[in-house]
Amino acid sequence: MSAVEVQALISSGLPMADDIGFQVESVRPGFARTRVPFNARNIRPGGTLSGPLQMALADAAMYAAILASLDKGAMAVTSNLSINFLHKPAPADLVAEAVVLRMGRRLAFCEVRLLSGEGEDEQMVAHVTGSYALPSVREKAS
Amino acid sequence: MSAVEVQALISSGLPMADDIGFQVESVRPGFARTRVPFNARNIRPGGTLSGPLQMALADAAMYAAILASLDKGAMAVTSNLSINFLHKPAPADLVAEAVVLRMGRRLAFCEVRLLSGEGEDEQMVAHVTGSYALPSVREKAS
Amino acid sequence: MSAVEVQALISSGLPMADDIGFQVESVRPGFARTRVPFNARNIRPGGTLSGPLQMALADAAMYAAILASLDKGAMAVTSNLSINFLHKPAPADLVAEAVVLRMGRRLAFCEVRLLSGEGEDEQMVAHVTGSYALPSVREKAS
Amino acid sequence: MSAVEVQALISSGLPMADDIGFQVESVRPGFARTRVPFNARNIRPGGTLSGPLQMALADAAMYAAILASLDKGAMAVTSNLSINFLHKPAPADLVAEAVVLRMGRRLAFCEVRLLSGEGEDEQMVAHVTGSYALPSVREKAS
Repeated sequence: MSAVEVQALISSGLPMADDIGFQVESVRPGFARTRVPFNARNIRPGGTLSGPLQMALADAAMYAAILASLDKGAMAVTSNLSINFLHKPAPADLVAEAVVLRMGRRLAFCEVRLLSGEGEDEQMVAHVTGSYALPSVREKAS
Repeated sequence: MSAVEVQALISSGLPMADDIGFQVESVRPGFARTRVPFNARNIRPGGTLSGPLQMALADAAMYAAILASLDKGAMAVTSNLSINFLHKPAPADLVAEAVVLRMGRRLAFCEVRLLSGEGEDEQMVAHVTGSYALPSVREKAS
Repeated sequence: MSAVEVQALISSGLPMADDIGFQVESVRPGFARTRVPFNARNIRPGGTLSGPLQMALADAAMYAAILASLDKGAMAVTSNLSINFLHKPAPADLVAEAVVLRMGRRLAFCEVRLLSGEGEDEQMVAHVTGSYALPSVREKAS
Repeated sequence: MSAVEVQALISSGLPMADDIGFQVESVRPGFARTRVPFNARNIRPGGTLSGPLQMALADAAMYAAILASLDKGAMAVTSNLSINFLHKPAPADLVAEAVVLRMGRRLAFCEVRLLSGEGEDEQMVAHVTGSYALPSVREKAS
């Protein structure tokens, strides 16, 4: 699937992704780069982006990386998400780079780096891992 | 702090909590019970509540349990949040019961059970743990 | 399976469990209580029990709780283990109480409390969660 | 600290590391590469290396990477360790590459890749993250 197709699928399935302006910038099998553009609405006191916003972006990025690795019509359901907050993100765009570290038949395991700032100021603000169950076609039919 | 004071503090600090209608039902030192009332806006395709909504509720519940354990004016910053999704929540209210398992001087560790359904139909739909850094007064001053 | 059967299965499969004197005290579907008796060999400088020992005990306890829930001949493979160390265990026996929070067809999710000390002095020293893949008979045959 | 100094410190503090033949191959601030040489004693039925062995190696590798980043005499205490098992390791040496992703004043956060096999056959068999509390000199003195 292309970045456009992945984004359409996520926007239709995750209203919250659409709310925050989630964009799929690029995908290839096992990888996705996604972005949430800066929006004053997402800022919490202290001038930083909320934890739930970061979790939502990471989840959507991992989902995008998995969709880009599977046949069309495939599904993935989040089983575990673990996030470590490292630095306060700047009041700016937030980028997520998700990598599929293992694509099994029934489970995918991914890692995400959440990045804030541009160029030399770019900083990893959170590290996320996630496990996704991959329902088989056979099980979906039953 | 009382449930009302904790809710006011969270609503002012976490706009997303307010958006989803987050309510603090009861607190005591080391414990908080919180609720997100059913709202069709939060439903994702398939009739279930989104993962990010569940994460936001769990984070706010742990924060409430910690605030209820500390002196007024204290702060806590999420360091890690790990969620395991167990069952799809019903299209209904979602309740979070958070317990502080360890309150150190610098780190608090909490566990949350997310519950869906009433009475005999109540079911744990997700299990969450979280670590929170507790900035000392001395550090905040510097 | 009984506690004796579960212990025999674990001892044959996990030499490290046998090394540390791992005992299955009781099992019922969805639950296991296990123990590592005090042994000066397991003590690290500072008079406490090592982290890897605690992880090994927690892993074996979750495995025992799952085996006690399945038909004989079933298998489970650790997919994720996450441990939070809360307090230094005393130089004494260490007990693990494992509960299966979700038994799916393909994944089991468990929680463990590691306990040190007796009676009023009993203290939770670590909190552990784990996910286990449950290979189906059909897949094992292929 | 050099690789030799770090290994001496770990061997004296973690008898289990010494038991499994743990070696520190190289360190630099924020990084450590460590190895457990193949030993038939560590093999479990099925010809693979046990989960607890992998956890012990990852924990020691993160500890080494932190020690290499701090002044002599510093300490670190494991607060959380989360491991995802990706593939069965071969009956061969196991290598851990640990990176410090955040070194705060009070908490360090690390990531480890456990690698099995050589050259083209090298494969990541587990992914680990860990948080470590860094007791301050001032607190140690009190």
